[in-house]
Amino acid sequence: MKKLEEYVRTIPDFPKEGIMFRDITTILQDADGFHMAVDELIKLAEDVDFDVVVGLEARGFIFGAPMAYAMNKEFALIRKQGKLPYETISQDCELQYGKATIEIQTDSVKPGQKVVLVDDLIATGGTLAASVSLVERLGGEVAAILCLMELKGLKGRDILSGYDVRSVISFDGK
Amino acid sequence: MKKLEEYVRTIPDFPKEGIMFRDITTILQDADGFHMAVDELIKLAEDVDFDVVVGLEARGFIFGAPMAYAMNKEFALIRKQGKLPYETISQDCELQYGKATIEIQTDSVKPGQKVVLVDDLIATGGTLAASVSLVERLGGEVAAILCLMELKGLKGRDILSGYDVRSVISFDGK
Repeated sequence: MKKLEEYVRTIPDFPKEGIMFRDITTILQDADGFHMAVDELIKLAEDVDFDVVVGLEARGFIFGAPMAYAMNKEFALIRKQGKLPYETISQDCELQYGKATIEIQTDSVKPGQKVVLVDDLIATGGTLAASVSLVERLGGEVAAILCLMELKGLKGRDILSGYDVRSVISFDGK
Repeated sequence: MKKLEEYVRTIPDFPKEGIMFRDITTILQDADGFHMAVDELIKLAEDVDFDVVVGLEARGFIFGAPMAYAMNKEFALIRKQGKLPYETISQDCELQYGKATIEIQTDSVKPGQKVVLVDDLIATGGTLAASVSLVERLGGEVAAILCLMELKGLKGRDILSGYDVRSVISFDGK
């Protein structure tokens, strides 16, 4: 059986020169690959006590939404600025290439709710750190941070220290 | 039991004045509501013969990815310009408010594959019509177009005539 790592396609210099982009669409192109990816994330979350899956736009939705569906949890969105209607709070973040501002709706996580953050990738951890802030500003508790892939060379875990960070696949490089 | 329609929040003047935005995040805030939404979409797809779910960025990912997971199908992405790595083809589309260019990776749908397009909403049908073109340019066949909500007043079905368009909820207005 093919390993999950083998499904990932690496694309040099996307979206900027010097970035080795880990393309997850080649996982999705195989029904078994996609199923395996979601099932592995569910396994990582099985011993975590939580109420809400918070997915990070846009690839976090691809893995977080099936997790929430299969585990019968709520699903909430963190999106780039201007994309969410209703009342939002926002947070700036440093990315591997540039900066961004992300937002969450004020009613998507209630005070005291336990949250699992889901994204496809931990790179520098900048977006995830800003997402942790958004959840905590709403009174939520980050029970775990789950990602399909982790680029160990970028040390994203360092700025997420104190949190339970779990990933399915690790790449040594950047 | 609460009906799916009752979960949808309507937000006036978002993202532009005059638009009554149908906010699906209030569905996601209830684990049963989210489950029901995905299950209703799956029911709509049950008699359709298809290989790939193609989700439209970004809300189409929220419903399309759990469908693909639960139905054990491939999942493919249509995204705004510049977001997808690897080789892509693009198509311009008219939106309810403005214009956009959307893209698909050239290997995400293979010639002869049967596709179900999934989005949260049919408004004018502009993005869906452009998505049909992208799939057909790759040699795929659009077996059905599935949306959670349909704004009947905008007549999106008119520019999608000849295609099997199915929606879970209908709103009479725009």
